[in-house]
Formats: sequence, C-alpha cells, structure tokens
Amino acid sequence: GGVGKDPESEHILSEFKTSTVLSDSAREKTIFVHGKLGDQEAVVILEKTPIREDDLAELFTGSRLKLEMRNDIYSTYRLLAPPQLNEIKTTVVCPATEKHIKKYQRQESSLVEETGEDYKSITLPYIQKQSFSVQWVHNILEKKAEAERIVYEDPDPEVGFLLLPDFKWDQKQVDDLYLIAIVHQRDIRSLRDLTSEHLPLLQNIFQKGKEAVLQRYSLAASKLRVYLHYQPSYYHLHVHFTKLGYEAPGCGVERAHLLADVIQNLQSDPQYYKTRTLYFPLRADDGLLGKFKEAGRL
Amino acid sequence: GGVGKDPESEHILSEFKTSTVLSDSAREKTIFVHGKLGDQEAVVILEKTPIREDDLAELFTGSRLKLEMRNDIYSTYRLLAPPQLNEIKTTVVCPATEKHIKKYQRQESSLVEETGEDYKSITLPYIQKQSFSVQWVHNILEKKAEAERIVYEDPDPEVGFLLLPDFKWDQKQVDDLYLIAIVHQRDIRSLRDLTSEHLPLLQNIFQKGKEAVLQRYSLAASKLRVYLHYQPSYYHLHVHFTKLGYEAPGCGVERAHLLADVIQNLQSDPQYYKTRTLYFPLRADDGLLGKFKEAGRL
Repeated sequence: GGVGKDPESEHILSEFKTSTVLSDSAREKTIFVHGKLGDQEAVVILEKTPIREDDLAELFTGSRLKLEMRNDIYSTYRLLAPPQLNEIKTTVVCPATEKHIKKYQRQESSLVEETGEDYKSITLPYIQKQSFSVQWVHNILEKKAEAERIVYEDPDPEVGFLLLPDFKWDQKQVDDLYLIAIVHQRDIRSLRDLTSEHLPLLQNIFQKGKEAVLQRYSLAASKLRVYLHYQPSYYHLHVHFTKLGYEAPGCGVERAHLLADVIQNLQSDPQYYKTRTLYFPLRADDGLLGKFKEAGRL
Repeated sequence: GGVGKDPESEHILSEFKTSTVLSDSAREKTIFVHGKLGDQEAVVILEKTPIREDDLAELFTGSRLKLEMRNDIYSTYRLLAPPQLNEIKTTVVCPATEKHIKKYQRQESSLVEETGEDYKSITLPYIQKQSFSVQWVHNILEKKAEAERIVYEDPDPEVGFLLLPDFKWDQKQVDDLYLIAIVHQRDIRSLRDLTSEHLPLLQNIFQKGKEAVLQRYSLAASKLRVYLHYQPSYYHLHVHFTKLGYEAPGCGVERAHLLADVIQNLQSDPQYYKTRTLYFPLRADDGLLGKFKEAGRL
C-alpha cells in the first residue's frame, strides 16, 4: 500500500482543532488530546520516542546547544536536534466515541489529611454506607475462585493468609513481581483498624510471605518492597509484595506504608494507627473527597 | 554572566566521544552516557522534554507526519517536529569522577535495615570517612551560583532555607514540578540528625515552602508531595517538593519520608530518628552496602 507515501497524511494534523487535553505525563513525555478533525471527533496521542544508543553520535554532532545553567562541574543545556533523530510517535483515533474520550481522561488528585477523628466522623461512615463488596475476596479465601493461582497459604484463621499474584502481573518475569497477601480474618478493613493485637498476624505475613517468594521465585527478601496502601482499593486487609526497583503503581510515599514500619510503629504505640494523622491522595471524582470537602477539611 | 550567549557552548558535544551507555529508560526517554570531552571524563544526560499544551497548535501546524499504520479508526504516524518545539534537556557533568559514573550506572538495589546502632557504627563513620563534597550546596547558599534560580529565601540562620528548582525540572510546566529546599544550617546531615529541636526549622520549611509554591506557581498545598530522602544523595539537609501525581524518581515508600510524618514523629518522640530502624535501598556498587555486608547485617 501507500504506507509512508500518502501525501495527504503529511499534514493531516494541521486541521486538527484541540478541544481539551485529556491527560499527559511529564515523566513519560506523553499527551492525550481531544479535538476535531474536520467535523469528526478525534483523540490524538503524542509520545516522544526513547533515545537510542545508535543515534547518539549523529545527535551529538548534528545538534545545537543552548546553555541554561552552569555551576561548578555541572551545566545544563537545551539541545535542538534534527527532527528525524527526535520523532514523536503519534496515534490518531478518528472518529472517536465518548468511551475513547473517557478512557484517556485523567483525574487530578488532592492530598487529604485525615486525623483519627476525621476517620471516625468522615471516612468510616462513608466506607460503611458504601458497603463496597468484597465478595470476590471471600471467593478467593473460600477457594471458589482463583484457587489455581495461589502461591502460598497459611490456613490459620487468626494469623493465616493467602498469597497470590496481583492481576497486574503477568508472571512472565520476576522484574515486575507483584503479589498480594490476603488475610483470613474478615473484620480488618485497613491500616486504621490495626493495633498491637495484630502484631502476630503482621509478623507472620512478613516472615512467611518473604519465605514463599524466595522458595517460588528465588527472590531474596532484600529485593522486596512489602507494604500496605492507605486508602486501600478494597477494605479487606491485604499486603503488597513488589520487587524493589520496579516502580509499581501505588508504591509512592503518599499512599504506601512499609509493613516493617507498621510493625515497628505498633510495637512502640499500640494505638498508633487509631490516633495518627494519615495523608493520602484522592481523585477528584472520589466520593470520599466530596465528604472531606463537605466537612470543611479541604 | 554569559548565560545562553556563550558561542562555544553551541557545539560543545560535537567533540564528545561516547565510551558507554550507563543506563537508559524507554519509559522516561532518558539516557545516561559516559564518555570524554577533550581529555576529560564526562557524563552526559539526555532527557526528552514533556509535551506542553501551549505548544500543541504550533506543533500540529508546523510538523510533518509519516504514516506508519492504519487500521479501522486507528492510525499511527511518526511526527517530525520543529527542533525548538521538541528540545532535549541535556546535562553535562565534566570533569566527572568515578563516583559520578557509578551514580548513573544502572545497578540492582538491596533493601538495607539500619538500626540506630547500625547508623552509629556503620553509616556515620562511612559518611565521615568519604567526606562527600557539598561545595556546590555552599555555593548556592552563598549566592556564588544559581542565585538567579532562587524561587524563595528565608535568610534566618536557624530556621531559614533556600527554595530552588531541582536540576531535573525544566520549569516549563507545573506537571512535573520539582523544587528543593536547602537549609541554611550546615551541620544537619540527614533525617538521622533530626530531633524535636529541629521542629521549628521543619515546620518553617513546610509552611513557607508551600506558600512560596502557591505564590509562584499557583499550585495549592494539597497538590504537593513534600518529603525527605533517606539515604539522601548528599549529606546537607534538604527537602523535596514535587507535584502529587508526578511519579518523581525517588518518591517511593522505600526511600521517601513525608515531611508531615517526620514532624509528627518528632512531636511524639523527640529521639524518633535516632532510635528507629530505617529501611532504604542501596545499589550493588554502593560502598555503604559493602560496609553493611562486612558487618554481617545483610
């Protein structure tokens, strides 16, 4: 076919009219734009291309530099590269439906400050009223689902748990290992419910979880990041095991709590997570954020 | 000075000879290259810049597209953009020492468990023996360098600090905002040196830093992630301000400590960071990891 030779395609985007930026990532150098191509709805996705080792020599000789800053042995420049060495991958979805547009839309998050009191008066009533279903978790615990995926089980009703791969992990390589430990106890919603009473449970998960990962995946405990989320995405206590060095979604300091720290905090103060102010991000469309706003806490 | 006007700088990289690629990231569009500039060792870091909404119109009209694939409503292109709309941020470290080269080399990390005792017997002696230079930090504090980059200053010798953009941030968009607050006090190495005595300093940085970001960048405090690193990359106390939602390197729970948590911990226990076991990743080639191994702590 005429791939790369269609003269019409050369400037197709010059008639594109931007309506709104759906999302972008400064880190990944991507942008998702909604707009119109002629009279049709369209989504245009731009992503800068990775820098290839093979292009370096040409890039260094063929580019111009503009000095920005110099301090001691460090200097920074803006480099103007030849366009063919610095392409932008472009995807056009046209005509795009409402569903495409929603799919690419990002929501801003805000950091919420939740005191122990806020938890009792705002968060807990909200969780209870929503009564988020954890039926799928119970199905796993009862072996009605995903039984063949279980990596390890300690069946003890008090300190026991199931360990299994997270959905996000395809299990093809250990580089992005992601496992979840789900406790057998059914009445622990989150970090906020933990007291020193739960130390045997937490220590058991930490110890046996690390042993199971070593046994099954030959990955040492020192290569693991073991943590809880607050807020969690479902209110049945679970612990994340991810490979250190893999930047798993949700491993940021604003949402993750190292299990080792949780244990230490409960050892020095049995009521630590009942009384502490906790910080976490909530998306603009999260119902809980609305509750914090109503309460004048944001 | 001659910032941006030095004609020599325009083609400084055309004489750069690549020895090896230290690391790269296809996701982040970065590459770290070791080589020689003349007869000096140098590290060159290239990072493609985020795509700015403000540039879209010009990008769409001023670029050429090459069709790669067309399937139903989806098509992909390679976009050739005008160089000034598609810069590559370039950092040159020259002359670079062995330590710089190591710093940028991709390495597996291990999670280290450092008790208060380990800090005194292993980490502190190591830091003191290495006597890492923080001359560049002193240059900033004394306005001998980067004075024009200062976003905010509180000159108080006890609780004062300078706020300025991190090298990694090109300041073109607020999406990946990254600022560093550097304290005027010169004898605080890291989190481990903090006690309740430093609460006025920490609270001052937290409060005035957030105000300065709001004033300068119209970004509310609830959109910020404010944290310290342990281990830090240099032993002069500094605090990171990054935009929530931007997955800044080093914002993972294994290395970052929310300033709000640090303040709260010191309020409830003045010696918290002297006595606590802290967890952090160390790269395989980090001298400190060797010390922990020698001590049988790993």
